[in-house]
Amino acid sequence: MNTFTFDDIVSKKDDPENYTRAEFKAAVTDEMMDKFLEISGDDNPLHRDSTFATDKGFRDRVVYGMLTASFYSRLAGVYLPGRNCILHSVESSFHAPVFVGDELTVSGFVKVKYESTRVIEVSAKIVNQDGTKVGKAKILAGFLE
Amino acid sequence: MNTFTFDDIVSKKDDPENYTRAEFKAAVTDEMMDKFLEISGDDNPLHRDSTFATDKGFRDRVVYGMLTASFYSRLAGVYLPGRNCILHSVESSFHAPVFVGDELTVSGFVKVKYESTRVIEVSAKIVNQDGTKVGKAKILAGFLE
Repeated sequence: MNTFTFDDIVSKKDDPENYTRAEFKAAVTDEMMDKFLEISGDDNPLHRDSTFATDKGFRDRVVYGMLTASFYSRLAGVYLPGRNCILHSVESSFHAPVFVGDELTVSGFVKVKYESTRVIEVSAKIVNQDGTKVGKAKILAGFLE
Repeated sequence: MNTFTFDDIVSKKDDPENYTRAEFKAAVTDEMMDKFLEISGDDNPLHRDSTFATDKGFRDRVVYGMLTASFYSRLAGVYLPGRNCILHSVESSFHAPVFVGDELTVSGFVKVKYESTRVIEVSAKIVNQDGTKVGKAKILAGFLE
């Protein structure tokens, strides 16, 4: 787990070569789909019923967008900035379907540091095993120091 | 589960009195915190370690923002629009801490209908048992019809 302070962070705006960034991989499993149902209460058939999903033109049931977006929690809370993180907002958009079994690569970099509020803006994306960008996000995080 | 089509939906912009809206309650449990850790991989101590959280000025460990945001998945997938939902984006911000045991009220209404893209914009908020707004979101959802 990273322990960055606000002062440790280098934004891409301030140094386009040596800026603060992070990347990790995450695979989506059936168990994660079941757990997300139990947390969220979202029993929409697109995520629960393969027949419904294929009838709608998908090759299988689709992973919850907000399950995929939970990886932004890890990106901020473990890496950018890590231990000192206090999350302000996550603006997440979904661009291509994710399926159970997909191996996702989650990455982000610090785009801007806001000195007056001591908040960082992290630009993040999630790419699947085929190189398709399935989602992106703008994350604002402050510091517990 | 609602089965609204795009044509069924009435936005607040189009009818400021009889617009499409929804509300439900959700309580946060320790089990949900553990499941969110298993899904997201976010082991930040603010969410896992009461001593760390109280040292940082909170009365107990803080519920993951993105766990609370998972209720927006239910809001869109079960209610607005429900069965026909295909989620495009969720812009979620966190305004006050949520704690295990909190009883949250999640509500939303259709603010705008975008006719050309057949997308609805849902304005959502989450309020705790004390009436404090803990978060809000702008959700864009399309229709599988």
